[in-house]
Amino acid sequence: MRAEIIAVGSELLTPDRTDTNSLFLTSELNKLGIEVVHKTIVGDSEPDLREAFAQAFERADVIVSSGGLGPTEDDVTREALSDLLGRKLESNLEVLRAIQERFARMGRQMAEVNKRQAMVPEGAIPLENLRGTAPGLWIEARERVAILLPGPPDELQAMFARQVAERLARRSGGMRQFSRQLRTTGMAESDLDERIKAIYLPLKDVTTTILAGGGEIQIHLRTWNKDSHSANQLLDEVAGRINMALGDFVFSDNGLPLEEIVAEALNKHNATLSTAESCTGGLIAERLTSIPGSSSYFLGGVVSYSNELKTAWADVPTELIESKGAVSAEVAIALAEGIRRSTGSSLGIGITGIAGPSGGTPEKPVGLVHIALADGKETRERPVRFMGDRNRIRWSASQAALDMVRRHFLNGDRAQKLGKS
Amino acid sequence: MRAEIIAVGSELLTPDRTDTNSLFLTSELNKLGIEVVHKTIVGDSEPDLREAFAQAFERADVIVSSGGLGPTEDDVTREALSDLLGRKLESNLEVLRAIQERFARMGRQMAEVNKRQAMVPEGAIPLENLRGTAPGLWIEARERVAILLPGPPDELQAMFARQVAERLARRSGGMRQFSRQLRTTGMAESDLDERIKAIYLPLKDVTTTILAGGGEIQIHLRTWNKDSHSANQLLDEVAGRINMALGDFVFSDNGLPLEEIVAEALNKHNATLSTAESCTGGLIAERLTSIPGSSSYFLGGVVSYSNELKTAWADVPTELIESKGAVSAEVAIALAEGIRRSTGSSLGIGITGIAGPSGGTPEKPVGLVHIALADGKETRERPVRFMGDRNRIRWSASQAALDMVRRHFLNGDRAQKLGKS
Repeated sequence: MRAEIIAVGSELLTPDRTDTNSLFLTSELNKLGIEVVHKTIVGDSEPDLREAFAQAFERADVIVSSGGLGPTEDDVTREALSDLLGRKLESNLEVLRAIQERFARMGRQMAEVNKRQAMVPEGAIPLENLRGTAPGLWIEARERVAILLPGPPDELQAMFARQVAERLARRSGGMRQFSRQLRTTGMAESDLDERIKAIYLPLKDVTTTILAGGGEIQIHLRTWNKDSHSANQLLDEVAGRINMALGDFVFSDNGLPLEEIVAEALNKHNATLSTAESCTGGLIAERLTSIPGSSSYFLGGVVSYSNELKTAWADVPTELIESKGAVSAEVAIALAEGIRRSTGSSLGIGITGIAGPSGGTPEKPVGLVHIALADGKETRERPVRFMGDRNRIRWSASQAALDMVRRHFLNGDRAQKLGKS
Repeated sequence: MRAEIIAVGSELLTPDRTDTNSLFLTSELNKLGIEVVHKTIVGDSEPDLREAFAQAFERADVIVSSGGLGPTEDDVTREALSDLLGRKLESNLEVLRAIQERFARMGRQMAEVNKRQAMVPEGAIPLENLRGTAPGLWIEARERVAILLPGPPDELQAMFARQVAERLARRSGGMRQFSRQLRTTGMAESDLDERIKAIYLPLKDVTTTILAGGGEIQIHLRTWNKDSHSANQLLDEVAGRINMALGDFVFSDNGLPLEEIVAEALNKHNATLSTAESCTGGLIAERLTSIPGSSSYFLGGVVSYSNELKTAWADVPTELIESKGAVSAEVAIALAEGIRRSTGSSLGIGITGIAGPSGGTPEKPVGLVHIALADGKETRERPVRFMGDRNRIRWSASQAALDMVRRHFLNGDRAQKLGKS
């Protein structure tokens, strides 16, 4: 079954607000095996709403709207749909009584205007609202079902859970969605696609989405099935083949972000980490400590913006900074080794670069970042050139640094498997 | 003029993501006097996209799409629109060269698949992408204009600013939006509303939106006019009255975020800052260094997660940590004073607290944070209790710490005006 979600409200067409109810609704519909194929956001205008419903009836089996069921004149969702379907609106005594009782419980009298909320189109089923005055509506027509829900998220969610989910499950007949998420870093989108398109393009039962951004590329696989065993088998097989094709570039096959993968690896190996950051300004430390319990693997870090503090906190020799420049492989290495020594951690990260927008030169352009990882035995260093604005360069650099830590353990784990360590 | 925004991408129809580019686009279109009347979110399916564009051409003068311009097979926005308009897609040599040059600059070879991005429909104007490989497109047809932009927000925003805004302004003729944005911190939403509702409720020509979140409350004022003088006069008057009613709680009346306001104050007073963070894990340093040119006021900071590093880096006496506990007013003060001394900055921030979710006790619950600011003469300390999850507590704490720096200079500036310093 295919669904369309219509979010109603002129405030959703301003720069300050947008629809978010559809995230909850999509999650719930997907669980019932119903795919969302279209979302529409429309103002409180009767002709616009009528058109939106008419088009939704053309392309979806289930139409869910949120908002526009309030008591005031500007709420016209009910009217627009009744008009479209040629169903008369009639006052429903039971609904009216429920609204009156709700006001009575709050010690207030029902305003005349609230009577509009008791209007129900012929043949529709009113859905009780336990958290507000606006009842919802379930309307079957043209072999479709339209479900009108109130806009406030808590009212909408409670109504969906209590009065919509089960009714919809009966219509959708056991179909459910299953999914996998692979996350990769260090690879360009086009290279990644070259490697895996032969795997996912021929698939008929699996929807593949490739998402690039934030220094990583995600691959989302989704399938619908009545039988969880065959769905999971199919997804495991596809995910396995993609994993194989991409190798070490995949950092997560369970949806976890890179900092959590790094945290897991550090904890697993009883290792600790410290950071000496310059261009990333504390972002790596911030990401590593955003995880509950981070004190088990993160001892501390310094943001040594000035050259003096690079020397004071991470023991970087003044002569080295003078001869090689603050942004250099040598200083990154000295930062990593220095912070590891001074904190006593097992691993030390050193990072220095030019985040821009100014400060670049032909030899050391904006976006050039040196990242080093010291483990007491050896220190690896990687120069990388990132594109984009200051924030994107900083984020990409933090991603590359965390990935060096992940790969450090990856090599260790592999060597172990081969009996080499 | 009426606009429709089409967000393209199957990932936007999942429970994980929804379109947010439309918030930026709406804001920019509104500034040009163009109202957004409809938003559509559609997957990467050529027939669905063709239908979405067809319907948008029926109801809007300007159609702006985001996404679906990538190099891979699943990106079909270009193809869908060309097909709908009956325009042939042709490889554009200039665009191809720009993409090749971009790859060359990164020291890589262009993948075969990227050639698709150089396909331009007959009569369309390609829009250069300075931040990515996907060019945008400007297509005039049926007395409408369709503007195809890439999905990544930084690429979309840069392209709109440089290549779309002016072209659209020429079409839209005269009417423009004017706005003011006041940002406050340290006040509850209900208290704020009590103080200002008598000002904004009676206004007919100004739309007021109050937005709470991220440790602050924003007040957005908007009006539309062909005449900039009367629009600005009206907004200045309203913003002035609100500013007066809220006093020191307003940190910004030009939309700038708190870290930029703090940066301005530090630069203005030739002051420098250093940070010793525990619970915020580098977030304050990260925010302060997210601003270009931050090395003029930010010397450096430490993230001293372990007690040993609090002593090593910020001179906090071991006995103090043992007797008062790491989360205490005394340790926050020692961190602030110690980091100021060791870096030689004019101001030092010390912060320690319990970000949770575990680690709380009845006396020191999750969300308790001690923040101290030292200036060499005196050190102020504030205990604050924040609500919410780990991320919200950390963000609110960073907001409160930056606000202490802002207020430090506020008092100085006021005393100066009164001739006291």
